[in-house]
Amino acid sequence: MWQPDRLSKQPLYQQIADHLERRISFGEFPPSSLLPSERKLAEKLGVNRSTIVLAYAELRSLGVIESHSGSGTRVSKHKWGLTPRHTPNWHRYVEGGHFLPNLPFLRRIREALEQNRSLIDFASGELGADISPVAEINQLMSQDYYTEYLGYDNPQGFLPLRKSLVTYLDTYRNIPTTESSILITSGSQQSLYLITQCLLAPGDAVAIEDPSYYYSLPMFQSAGIRLFRLPVDRQGINPEDVRTLYKKHRIKMVFINPNHQNPSGVVLSPERQVELLNVSSELGLPIVEDDPFSLTTYNGIPTPPLKSIDTFGSVLYIGSMSKIAASGLRVGWMVAPRSVIERLADARQQMDYGLSVVPQRVAAQFLNSPLFEPHLERLRMRIQSKRDLLVTSLRKELGDMVSFDIPEGGLHLWCRIKPEVNESRLLEECIRRGVIYVPGSVYGSDSDYVRFTFARAREEDIVPGIAKFADALNTVLNDKI
Amino acid sequence: MWQPDRLSKQPLYQQIADHLERRISFGEFPPSSLLPSERKLAEKLGVNRSTIVLAYAELRSLGVIESHSGSGTRVSKHKWGLTPRHTPNWHRYVEGGHFLPNLPFLRRIREALEQNRSLIDFASGELGADISPVAEINQLMSQDYYTEYLGYDNPQGFLPLRKSLVTYLDTYRNIPTTESSILITSGSQQSLYLITQCLLAPGDAVAIEDPSYYYSLPMFQSAGIRLFRLPVDRQGINPEDVRTLYKKHRIKMVFINPNHQNPSGVVLSPERQVELLNVSSELGLPIVEDDPFSLTTYNGIPTPPLKSIDTFGSVLYIGSMSKIAASGLRVGWMVAPRSVIERLADARQQMDYGLSVVPQRVAAQFLNSPLFEPHLERLRMRIQSKRDLLVTSLRKELGDMVSFDIPEGGLHLWCRIKPEVNESRLLEECIRRGVIYVPGSVYGSDSDYVRFTFARAREEDIVPGIAKFADALNTVLNDKI
Repeated sequence: MWQPDRLSKQPLYQQIADHLERRISFGEFPPSSLLPSERKLAEKLGVNRSTIVLAYAELRSLGVIESHSGSGTRVSKHKWGLTPRHTPNWHRYVEGGHFLPNLPFLRRIREALEQNRSLIDFASGELGADISPVAEINQLMSQDYYTEYLGYDNPQGFLPLRKSLVTYLDTYRNIPTTESSILITSGSQQSLYLITQCLLAPGDAVAIEDPSYYYSLPMFQSAGIRLFRLPVDRQGINPEDVRTLYKKHRIKMVFINPNHQNPSGVVLSPERQVELLNVSSELGLPIVEDDPFSLTTYNGIPTPPLKSIDTFGSVLYIGSMSKIAASGLRVGWMVAPRSVIERLADARQQMDYGLSVVPQRVAAQFLNSPLFEPHLERLRMRIQSKRDLLVTSLRKELGDMVSFDIPEGGLHLWCRIKPEVNESRLLEECIRRGVIYVPGSVYGSDSDYVRFTFARAREEDIVPGIAKFADALNTVLNDKI
Repeated sequence: MWQPDRLSKQPLYQQIADHLERRISFGEFPPSSLLPSERKLAEKLGVNRSTIVLAYAELRSLGVIESHSGSGTRVSKHKWGLTPRHTPNWHRYVEGGHFLPNLPFLRRIREALEQNRSLIDFASGELGADISPVAEINQLMSQDYYTEYLGYDNPQGFLPLRKSLVTYLDTYRNIPTTESSILITSGSQQSLYLITQCLLAPGDAVAIEDPSYYYSLPMFQSAGIRLFRLPVDRQGINPEDVRTLYKKHRIKMVFINPNHQNPSGVVLSPERQVELLNVSSELGLPIVEDDPFSLTTYNGIPTPPLKSIDTFGSVLYIGSMSKIAASGLRVGWMVAPRSVIERLADARQQMDYGLSVVPQRVAAQFLNSPLFEPHLERLRMRIQSKRDLLVTSLRKELGDMVSFDIPEGGLHLWCRIKPEVNESRLLEECIRRGVIYVPGSVYGSDSDYVRFTFARAREEDIVPGIAKFADALNTVLNDKI
């Protein structure tokens, strides 16, 4: 006789519901026939009665059975004479997969932005149209568009782009490398995804900064990876914490964003860089260095990346066009030992068969063009002036109610709200007033922080945006009184 | 005292090697100190001696320990006074991930094609440059290139492209749909990947055709999914087999390629389409319909897709530009219930943050342009004439040694080799002679089949290509005599 599988990850009540549904659809229980009572069936299958209650509720919701007080539970009458037909229970499939959905706050933010295009956007972590090199990119696309056959590309990415990246990485980041050690990805996001999918296994432990953008990525949990925190102070993470986590939790990898960290804006100090490399090489522990913001360093002199002093080959280096040119190009890269690059390139083929050559070529053209350097200079200037606007209006509007360090690069300001607030209440009040940002808990910190992205909004919107935020905050605080 | 974790998926010997390595690097065993004998340590840890032998061998290979016959196993002397520093054991990481690499044959084929661009390519499942609409696409790109801001795109994909797909699907595939039921993907590959990642869970069973392109995709196994076969005859799969597999293995989904199936070229007959939909709706079983080839049907009258008669909403429909325009655009689409689309779009954001707008816009332009229809007509004609060349030369060169059905659409010919051959031997002999194809076992069939893609090679190369193949085959057969 059939018995539910107690080892299956599918809940018992659902297994039972499926089983009964199948027997009914195969005609084993004819329409309006009486089903066993909840108590009887529970005994028969050796489960709690509550399990059967749930199973019957499920079948009732599918219209397969009907319960009438007194007359027990019966197969639905209206199925008389016809095979039960129904569409797949999509809800069950959508809930069933092991890949976790994005965090509620992030889905809410995306939804709000889609519903109201005029929201003042301090949430989207990207450049605004006003400072993105739209004109430059269009000029390049129109002057010299792609004219060759668009077949499947090399698994590691478009060779001319990898060639220009060799020069770019050497010139701007002091990273000597070769085309064969570079993988082109669909932005940093895909680099991170490939690493978690291919180099880590379920149950593995990794260390990330606290607060951290990574904390907001369910992909780690989806891959069954356990996250441990490396608190960030004004010099970045403390390398000794890495050793501690290694001894304690056998961490397999360290993910960091050392330059203008997202969200804190902190830069890992050169001393700590050296220390971190020593610890990691001593432990044979790989470091994933995510470096999207360094070229935005406002004074034009970014701290060199870990990768530039990585004599032990412990660092997987990740970069992208998203924060210095256009996120919509979806062009990023990874520099890693060849064996790693080949493994990830092979896996990537199975996921999406690689990137289109078209945007890769645009990126290569831009990196090689005389338009790139002037764009960078202008970009740094413009982002800095947006930061200044944000800082001034935060002080003016909120004074002592907020505290923050002024970032020297990057797109984000990590702002502490003095009085504790209800995060979702504050977010909703802001959305109602036409401004949006990202609540701090998304990055794993306490609920008294918010992340303001100042590079996205137009300059003229920053001051009014913060005024709206202040108004919302005051309203929420007055709740309490 | 430390003990290996028997529940961990990491082999015991490796856990022991890691543990010892750590203790040595922390100085608990000073350089040239004697380590316990294999027997002693085996007893202490309650493992077989052979496990310790392996662990010591691992450490020896890392240069951490030295063994001298007679004097036992010692910590390496040369580490005296310095902390052991080493790069991460990348090999271990690369092997450790749970995402499986591509099949050896497929990696070998890719490698061969990269090494020798002049190979006559019957392997790559795509259109050749000679029949791809290169000129048309370039004309569109040059006339009217993208001029707006390249920010992050809508998670479901570029709206204008989804709009043109609504028209396209209605016009060419009799599929009525809306923009909100469409997800733009990086080709069919990504659609399949998203489905396996988000709608299925490890341990789930799915049914695929035998032979099938899907069989060649380790992504199913990577996701812990069990594959069951639906044998394909001249009318396609037999729907009753689906019911049988459902009863026997509780299959959760059916993946099929009903039109000019890859590799067999078979078309699922209209009668069987109806039957299949009845079975699947009766069982509430979703069908993934992969439909990349139908517009290549040489007589211009493709069989309508399952989705066009899917009254129960059981079908997830997948299409792409790859086989009708250019694989290098990396533009595909999925039509599915909204809840499914939203779930997959959300997950996709976490994997790669969506596609670049640039190729999506090119695809939209092309679908809307008056150039599209004439291209399709030319394409069908050209592919058919390539097929004819292949068929004639196969008969001429190999006569009774091969048997096959002549495909009426698609890019592939599924060819049976009469005498059993050694697959890898034949492949290597062909590569040596300058021709390449895909061995049949890649698609889950016996080793006496090969898949010839005839759309990729230039017309003038097809006859010489088959001549080389015949020569290689004869050589391999003569081995036996």
